[in-house]
Amino acid sequence: MSTGATKISIYERPLEDPLVHLPRSTVLDFRKGQIIYHADQPASSIYLVINGRVKVCRQADPDLPVVVDIYRRDDFFGEGALIGLTRRGEEATALEGTQVMSWTSAEIEDVLLRRPRLGLALIQMLVQRSLEFSQRIVSFSADNTARRLARSLLRLADRMGERTDDGSVHVLPFTHQLLSQYVGTSREIVTHYMNQFRRDGYLRYSRKGMDLYADALADWLRTTA
Amino acid sequence: MSTGATKISIYERPLEDPLVHLPRSTVLDFRKGQIIYHADQPASSIYLVINGRVKVCRQADPDLPVVVDIYRRDDFFGEGALIGLTRRGEEATALEGTQVMSWTSAEIEDVLLRRPRLGLALIQMLVQRSLEFSQRIVSFSADNTARRLARSLLRLADRMGERTDDGSVHVLPFTHQLLSQYVGTSREIVTHYMNQFRRDGYLRYSRKGMDLYADALADWLRTTA
Repeated sequence: MSTGATKISIYERPLEDPLVHLPRSTVLDFRKGQIIYHADQPASSIYLVINGRVKVCRQADPDLPVVVDIYRRDDFFGEGALIGLTRRGEEATALEGTQVMSWTSAEIEDVLLRRPRLGLALIQMLVQRSLEFSQRIVSFSADNTARRLARSLLRLADRMGERTDDGSVHVLPFTHQLLSQYVGTSREIVTHYMNQFRRDGYLRYSRKGMDLYADALADWLRTTA
Repeated sequence: MSTGATKISIYERPLEDPLVHLPRSTVLDFRKGQIIYHADQPASSIYLVINGRVKVCRQADPDLPVVVDIYRRDDFFGEGALIGLTRRGEEATALEGTQVMSWTSAEIEDVLLRRPRLGLALIQMLVQRSLEFSQRIVSFSADNTARRLARSLLRLADRMGERTDDGSVHVLPFTHQLLSQYVGTSREIVTHYMNQFRRDGYLRYSRKGMDLYADALADWLRTTA
C-alpha cells in the first residue's frame, strides 16, 4: 500500500511474501504493446512482473475487450497455469517496456512441496485477488458509472500510485480507452466523467500521468451514496 | 462438474482435493436463514459446507445486498480468514438447514506446513474462484441483463445441478430475489426474464426447484451475441 504509511492495516498480521521462496528465473523482455500470451494458448507458466506494467484482458466478443486487471512490479499474473488450463481464455499485453520472470506449474509445485510457506504466500495473494474481484462485482451491481469509475481510480491509485507532498496520489498514465475497458463502459463516458472529476478538483493531469486527490474522491463516494 | 460425465476437461490433469489433507473438525448446525458470520466480525475461521447451501453477501448499501456466491457441499467459504482480515466485509447465511466444519487460520497454516499438498489444493480452488469472478466481471461489462441472467443460471446449474434423463439439469429452488442479488438487477426484472426463458422452453419449474435446458440456453447465448 503506497497511499499512506500510517494506514491502519486491514490484516491482523503481515502477509507472507512469495518472492522470498521462489528461485530466480530468466528475465524476459517485452516491448510496449507486445503480447505476452494469447487467449488460445494453454496456460503453462505463471508470470511475475519485474519492471513495467501488464494488462490482462478477456474478450466478451472480438470488439469488446474487458480489462481483468493491470499488474505492476512484484505482481503475479497468468495464475491459470496453476490449474493447468488447456486454454488461457485471457490475453496478457505489456503496457510499456516490461520485464517478467516465469515459472512452469511443475516448477512452482516442486518448490511448494519443499517450501510450504510458498503455498501460504500464494494462497494469501489469491485470497486478496478474490476479495478485490468480489468488490468489483458489488460495484458493478450497485454503482452507477461515475461511482464505478471513481472506485476504479481509487483502486488503481492504491495499488500503483505514489503519494505526493500535497496529499494527492501520482499515478502513471492510463488512457481513457484502458479505463473504459476496466470500468465496463465506453471511452466517451469515461472522458465525460474524467472531465467532471477534473473540474470538481478530484484529479489533475500532470506531466507524467495523473494526480488523484484520493481522500477527497473517497469522501465524494461516501457522501453521494 | 455434475452436468455431463463426458464433458471435455478444461484442465490438463485432475486438481488436488483439499479435503484429503484436512483433519475432521466439529460439525456446526445452522437453521435456514441463520447467519454464520456477520460482516463486522474479524475473519478468524475458514468454513467447509458439509450439507446444505450457504449464501455469501456483501452490502453495497444497507438496502442492496449483492450475492458474492452460493456454496454447497464440499465448497469452502470465509477464506478471508487466510489473510487475517480484521473485518469480514461479507455476511454468510444458511439458505436451508446447513452443516459446516471450520478451521482457524492457525490450524490451516499448521496442517499446510506439514502437508504442502493442502497448499496446492487451496491454491487451485482459489485460482478457479478468481477465474469465475473474472468471468462475472466480463459479463457485467459486456452483457445485458437477460444474458447475465442466462449465464448465472448456467453457472449455478453447472456447479449445483444434477443432469436428468431428458437432458435438462435439475437445480434446487432459488428465489427470484436471490437471483436478482446474484445478477445485480431487480427482482421484477429477474421475474420478467425468467418468464420469458420459461415461455421459450429454456426452463421449467418443477416440484422441487427448476429444470434448466442448459445446452439450449448456452446455444441461445452463443447465437444472440
